[in-house]
Amino acid sequence: MKWTLPELVKRFDARFVPSSSTEEIDRLCTLEEGAPGGLSFFSNPIYTALLYQTHASAVLVPADFTPRAPLYPALLAVNDPYRCFCLLLGEAYREQTRAKYGTETPSYIGQHVSLGNHVYRGAFSYIGDHVTIGDNVKIYPHVCIGDRVVIGDDTILYSGVKIASNTHIGKRCVVHAGAVLGSAGFGFVTHADASYQRVPSIGKVVLADDVEIGANTTIDAAVIGKTTIGRGTKIDNLVQVGHNVQIGIHTGVAAQVGIAGSTKVGSHCKLGGQTGIAGHLEIGDRVTALGRAGITRSFKKGHIILSGTPAFEHKKFLACYAHFKHRMRKETRKPSI
Amino acid sequence: MKWTLPELVKRFDARFVPSSSTEEIDRLCTLEEGAPGGLSFFSNPIYTALLYQTHASAVLVPADFTPRAPLYPALLAVNDPYRCFCLLLGEAYREQTRAKYGTETPSYIGQHVSLGNHVYRGAFSYIGDHVTIGDNVKIYPHVCIGDRVVIGDDTILYSGVKIASNTHIGKRCVVHAGAVLGSAGFGFVTHADASYQRVPSIGKVVLADDVEIGANTTIDAAVIGKTTIGRGTKIDNLVQVGHNVQIGIHTGVAAQVGIAGSTKVGSHCKLGGQTGIAGHLEIGDRVTALGRAGITRSFKKGHIILSGTPAFEHKKFLACYAHFKHRMRKETRKPSI
Amino acid sequence: MKWTLPELVKRFDARFVPSSSTEEIDRLCTLEEGAPGGLSFFSNPIYTALLYQTHASAVLVPADFTPRAPLYPALLAVNDPYRCFCLLLGEAYREQTRAKYGTETPSYIGQHVSLGNHVYRGAFSYIGDHVTIGDNVKIYPHVCIGDRVVIGDDTILYSGVKIASNTHIGKRCVVHAGAVLGSAGFGFVTHADASYQRVPSIGKVVLADDVEIGANTTIDAAVIGKTTIGRGTKIDNLVQVGHNVQIGIHTGVAAQVGIAGSTKVGSHCKLGGQTGIAGHLEIGDRVTALGRAGITRSFKKGHIILSGTPAFEHKKFLACYAHFKHRMRKETRKPSI
Repeated sequence: MKWTLPELVKRFDARFVPSSSTEEIDRLCTLEEGAPGGLSFFSNPIYTALLYQTHASAVLVPADFTPRAPLYPALLAVNDPYRCFCLLLGEAYREQTRAKYGTETPSYIGQHVSLGNHVYRGAFSYIGDHVTIGDNVKIYPHVCIGDRVVIGDDTILYSGVKIASNTHIGKRCVVHAGAVLGSAGFGFVTHADASYQRVPSIGKVVLADDVEIGANTTIDAAVIGKTTIGRGTKIDNLVQVGHNVQIGIHTGVAAQVGIAGSTKVGSHCKLGGQTGIAGHLEIGDRVTALGRAGITRSFKKGHIILSGTPAFEHKKFLACYAHFKHRMRKETRKPSI
Repeated sequence: MKWTLPELVKRFDARFVPSSSTEEIDRLCTLEEGAPGGLSFFSNPIYTALLYQTHASAVLVPADFTPRAPLYPALLAVNDPYRCFCLLLGEAYREQTRAKYGTETPSYIGQHVSLGNHVYRGAFSYIGDHVTIGDNVKIYPHVCIGDRVVIGDDTILYSGVKIASNTHIGKRCVVHAGAVLGSAGFGFVTHADASYQRVPSIGKVVLADDVEIGANTTIDAAVIGKTTIGRGTKIDNLVQVGHNVQIGIHTGVAAQVGIAGSTKVGSHCKLGGQTGIAGHLEIGDRVTALGRAGITRSFKKGHIILSGTPAFEHKKFLACYAHFKHRMRKETRKPSI
Repeated sequence: MKWTLPELVKRFDARFVPSSSTEEIDRLCTLEEGAPGGLSFFSNPIYTALLYQTHASAVLVPADFTPRAPLYPALLAVNDPYRCFCLLLGEAYREQTRAKYGTETPSYIGQHVSLGNHVYRGAFSYIGDHVTIGDNVKIYPHVCIGDRVVIGDDTILYSGVKIASNTHIGKRCVVHAGAVLGSAGFGFVTHADASYQRVPSIGKVVLADDVEIGANTTIDAAVIGKTTIGRGTKIDNLVQVGHNVQIGIHTGVAAQVGIAGSTKVGSHCKLGGQTGIAGHLEIGDRVTALGRAGITRSFKKGHIILSGTPAFEHKKFLACYAHFKHRMRKETRKPSI
């Protein structure tokens, strides 16, 4: 991993503010960990102090940035510093990570399996019967793939991923370590004696193309039909997606979110960490739930931002919460209380 | 999977409202995914619109249902549409899922293991020493069973389940993929220098008969004695059950619930998703916590419904929350604010 | 496991209150499960009733304890009953748990691996290339260790732990079953068409010495640099630690906590179960968050106790919440509402 500053200036069409630092970049770093040879980026103003302290050799900054004090690093002023930085991150990642190929032993493969070209099958990986696996799929150690599963080209299943029978996974998906796709939904019929009888799940999980599923996340199979995750949707770690949930395209779901059974979440939504959504609801496109929102009713599509439990419009919630905090303050001032 | 409508009418003693659709049912479906040959069910009134749109050939409806408009499907009016549907689901499930038997290789088995009849041991499954396994137990790939574990007849351990040493599991239990039973409790003694020393767990986890444990759920071993899950209790995905917790019979615990150490939860309770219960509490029989309740004190048995954090009676909570939302509205109307 | 009461009295320098019970202790038990031969402890006053009911042969009690009624067990009055009990628990644990050694087959080991002395490698464990493993490390079945990982002496990795490439783990760490270290951070660049492009993680996870990580917990690798968990910090089950998070020393993190990317948590903090902390914040040393706190801004170091979402000082929160509950009560008394 080596770049020179003139090369980067040219590549990103950057306005260049030189410094006395080196022109050779040999690693990417945070502002905080900056050291000679390092290139960092600055886009979130909360890190302004770090920018003036960093010893990185160069920093990607916003196009309109003007320093208010002397700086150690050279500056490359560009339209989108973070995006430029991510391009370089991608190059570093590909250099650092040797792509895995071939079959390690022992591994298990069932009958009537169709394997694409250049598939990696890690040691102790398990593939059931009647499975179809596309080209360049990477199956890390301890992955378990049930019967009749279909996996599209260029998909990566990290170590310990469990894929239940009948699951369909699109192209270029990434399923992180320990995630479970296709566990039985939490549905029971209650008997007269108050005991429960399981409602069997005969449905499946379907991930469209370019979906990402986080580590140790669980996605339940549909009771009948499909639990579907739309194209390009990204789900973080430790998320629970109930049976028959449908999520649209390009929606982001942060860690520890829970979505109960049969709920529909639209496209381009953003669900903050630890958000919960009750079952049988419809959340329209472009709805944002801030962290820890508890959604108990349906919301039409739109640019609404939700918080609180039960959740309502964030701005209103903040005003209510300010009042909630204020009431205490006023009253505790009174000597009689 | 094939049924005829006359056959189903007779079987469920249904009132039959015919239609021009086919009499041959070859699959079970949701109202939304209804297509000729499909049988669906209708019991939750929020899906009324879908009933009038569905192209399923037949729908199980409540006994007293009277259509308010023309319908495409034939109707089978029965006492409990969902329960009837679940019976058929069970048949479809058994037809679709070939039961697993025998031993795949490689698998690992320790010394002094007692194996029942018709056990399935998946590839890469691990069984420690002095383990007792009942008849018809199914051990999927990548299951790890520690020493001195006892597993009752007809229990299923899905892929990647980890059972620590000394755990006892009853008959007809189901443990879903990635669940961990018997992890060490989170107990530490604090030293004078503020460092922590682990309190070792020498106790165990005991699941009674007919218990279900969700995917990636974790249940800690008792420090001493037992962490117990009562007969017929069903626990969903990503739930945390602390050390020495005791849960009664036929209790339902939804996804992402956390129950801290030494707390007792009664029988026939229902804990909604993301509920948290602090440690050393007693929650009596038949208590219901709605999703996201934060329970910080004990509650006697009874039909109370809880919500909020700290949790109290749901109806009162709703009234308080309405007031909380209302205060903001009144004040933001004032120009001075 | 056998002790006599005179031996324990001498060892803990205890004040002894005899009873008619046996002097031979052959197991450790809770007050509730007390039976002849059992030794229990009493330190939390909420269990006072159990002390007067227990049939344990002896109980460790606080030095200043005076019974208010006759008791079945003999009493050993000591300075710290729980700490004494834990010492005995440790002895019982070591007696009960045969330490694992050697290599079970099949297991997988890559190239250029440096293995210390007395390492346990369970069946179906996987070790990648260029890995360094210290003395006495225990690698349980189904553990997956990526390339270039370093693991210090005396560390235990329980079954199904997944360690991504480049992770560094200190000495005497314990990683419980199913935990994932080094999953990719949840970072994406948004394209003009609203699709997401992954920000690759080229950083790593670094655990200092004496760290514990709970079952099915996930810790994301840094995008660049390190996600660090400080010396002696203990993390419970199902916790999410985002990319580039830094946690100080001797901090305790209870189950189901979520810490978003780039946040710093100080030393000697205590985070109660289900607490959430937003990204890019700084939580100073000795901050306590009670269960379910939702932290949305930075807090300086200090002995502050937080609760609520958004979180503020616990005492104030309780006063506000009392008012919140009170408002409802007053208003529902009015006949007009």
